[in-house]
Amino acid sequence: MINIAVLGYGTVGSGIIEVLNTNGDSINKKAGEEINVKYVLDLRDFPGDPVQDKIVHDFNVILSDPEIEIIAEVMGGAEPAYTFVKAALQHKKSVCTSNKELVAKYGPELLEIARQNKRNFLFEASVGGGIPIIRPLNQSLTADEITKITGVLNGTSNYILTKMSKEGMEFKDALKQAQEFGYAERNPDADILGYDSTRKIAILASLAFGMSADYEDIYTEGITKITDKDFLYANSMGLSIKLFAKAEKVDSKFYAMVAPAMIDDNHPLHSVNGVFNGILVNGNVIGDVMFYGSGAGKLPTASAVVADIVDAVKHLNVNIMSHWSSKKLEFTDIRQSKKQFFVRIKGLAKDKLAEVEKAFGKVQLVELDELKDEFGFITSIMTEEAFEEAQNETQGIITRIRIEG
Amino acid sequence: MINIAVLGYGTVGSGIIEVLNTNGDSINKKAGEEINVKYVLDLRDFPGDPVQDKIVHDFNVILSDPEIEIIAEVMGGAEPAYTFVKAALQHKKSVCTSNKELVAKYGPELLEIARQNKRNFLFEASVGGGIPIIRPLNQSLTADEITKITGVLNGTSNYILTKMSKEGMEFKDALKQAQEFGYAERNPDADILGYDSTRKIAILASLAFGMSADYEDIYTEGITKITDKDFLYANSMGLSIKLFAKAEKVDSKFYAMVAPAMIDDNHPLHSVNGVFNGILVNGNVIGDVMFYGSGAGKLPTASAVVADIVDAVKHLNVNIMSHWSSKKLEFTDIRQSKKQFFVRIKGLAKDKLAEVEKAFGKVQLVELDELKDEFGFITSIMTEEAFEEAQNETQGIITRIRIEG
Repeated sequence: MINIAVLGYGTVGSGIIEVLNTNGDSINKKAGEEINVKYVLDLRDFPGDPVQDKIVHDFNVILSDPEIEIIAEVMGGAEPAYTFVKAALQHKKSVCTSNKELVAKYGPELLEIARQNKRNFLFEASVGGGIPIIRPLNQSLTADEITKITGVLNGTSNYILTKMSKEGMEFKDALKQAQEFGYAERNPDADILGYDSTRKIAILASLAFGMSADYEDIYTEGITKITDKDFLYANSMGLSIKLFAKAEKVDSKFYAMVAPAMIDDNHPLHSVNGVFNGILVNGNVIGDVMFYGSGAGKLPTASAVVADIVDAVKHLNVNIMSHWSSKKLEFTDIRQSKKQFFVRIKGLAKDKLAEVEKAFGKVQLVELDELKDEFGFITSIMTEEAFEEAQNETQGIITRIRIEG
Repeated sequence: MINIAVLGYGTVGSGIIEVLNTNGDSINKKAGEEINVKYVLDLRDFPGDPVQDKIVHDFNVILSDPEIEIIAEVMGGAEPAYTFVKAALQHKKSVCTSNKELVAKYGPELLEIARQNKRNFLFEASVGGGIPIIRPLNQSLTADEITKITGVLNGTSNYILTKMSKEGMEFKDALKQAQEFGYAERNPDADILGYDSTRKIAILASLAFGMSADYEDIYTEGITKITDKDFLYANSMGLSIKLFAKAEKVDSKFYAMVAPAMIDDNHPLHSVNGVFNGILVNGNVIGDVMFYGSGAGKLPTASAVVADIVDAVKHLNVNIMSHWSSKKLEFTDIRQSKKQFFVRIKGLAKDKLAEVEKAFGKVQLVELDELKDEFGFITSIMTEEAFEEAQNETQGIITRIRIEG
């Protein structure tokens, strides 16, 4: 029997208990050992709940119990998670976490402590909820040099964008609906401003490129400026708009960004709708591989944590994660990266096209019958820097959205 | 240094050498050892090729060399692959294979021999080419009871169907083009009649349900009867037609089949086009997860074999695959399984609808302006058996295609 402790009895924590209760027999068989939840750490009590007897309020009870081999940390936030996890690993307890903030901020340090102690620090659930992506990157795509990772990594913003696209809703109404359905938090900033995606792409970039990506270095733009009019254009062109997270290596330089992007219907992420996530990985020999599934939610996330627990049981004293180097992954300013841009501008094409093409070079017009006092255009491929310069030379630009191929 | 041997210097075999040459440094780093190809087994010689010095014609040279720790078997076919692989495992050499026939036919036996010898029998490349699916099923989705696996598992037939759908090509022209581009073999039967998909879904079903699925028990229907007219109907309804491979557990009964199916644009496999493969896994806690990528091709397949080699190096004396039980997975006759059907029938709806609804119950009409002397309809959900009975009572049915949700 392997004794474990769960830190945090919130959504994911109670999901872990539910998954272990539901599939305990097959899970124990796959782990080769019976998994027993000995403690659940929470500040609250849960009278009447079956876990009440296992609730402890003091982490030191867990830390000092030599029977505890594995700890599932699902509290979220940097502290006290970091202090607890570090101490656990130093006390030779493996840790499985769903905490993207913890991994994005302290990943290399915690992986190194795990390695030194011949234990494991596993974090499948920190990116893409239940979608297997960390383990495939770590163990399956080992024959490849990863050249690019793009993802729809935030279910909340993707739900909002999908509602705007399919039902013509305005941003604020779609956000309100997402909140009503529990897909968005009361303070949705981390999701809709892109920061959640930034932390996740930093984790994926670190794993893919083997160095420490600092999420604070990553250009981040949220979805709050996307309007129903943008979707009129996108739909007319057969494009979808996604909050795109991207990390890539081009000519030995690394670029990363999070921003809304238009993608066409040949793109594997085009049909990632609603609260689903999709992660597209490009390797230099395997080509494109995509992973798709529920990016959040109690049970999918708990499923990923429990799968990590099973792996930790099977590798009690063997370190299995590739650790990424603590060397900083230096991103090149995205102003040097190249792409096409979609631009909306006030006025009539017949009056403004000459001015536009003087600044941007040859463009492709997108005019909509519904919108009489503006028009759209698509630029040729240009650097972000050249785009900015052209934008500054042009009057009346309403918005611009990047186009990703 | 770890010495390996490659059995077969065809497409995948030469791909393995190319992948090791291209990404050798990073592969060795991830493996923690330098991987050295000591032998390549082939009946032919390759004068002038860098591998010529490593070519051997006699498998016993490899088998009897104690320096060889791992063997990559990429010859294809049941024999002599089975004899070689069995002997290799008995001689305590791990085996990594891309050979779906071998795995579908001898999987449980070879896994058991590997386990007894504390070596590994790995076969990521046998299903879905480069797509990580075997390892995720084995190691990532361990918290779940898998309830259903559906897949577009054959790139050749999917290429043909995509050409028919997008360009209105007829079957024979699309097949000819696939052969010209090297996507279909001169004898394409295994692909277009569905047998390739059947072997692959048998492997996935065995892993997912932990028992041995015999591919000969699986109902198989190819794509040779699909016509451009079927696509007129499908496109008018926004549906795509895929060669669908499916294995599922419903009320403790197992069903499996390979057959063309219509799916709507909310289905994650809807946009798996061309030579790509997609595999959708449903687990009882994780929900839907999809894996997508190149289902075949020299380098993607070689990438999967090399990733297995890396895993075999990291687990030289540790058995890591869940072995499925040799207990036979008993499939229930698909005549008991339920779904909707799309049917094309000669005549005019106004003349025939009463007869149709007498046999099938209420149906949903699909009439096309282009096709004057026939019409289509969609049945309600019914068993295959009830469908057959109704079909036998009805005159003039041209074809039927299952609809999958």
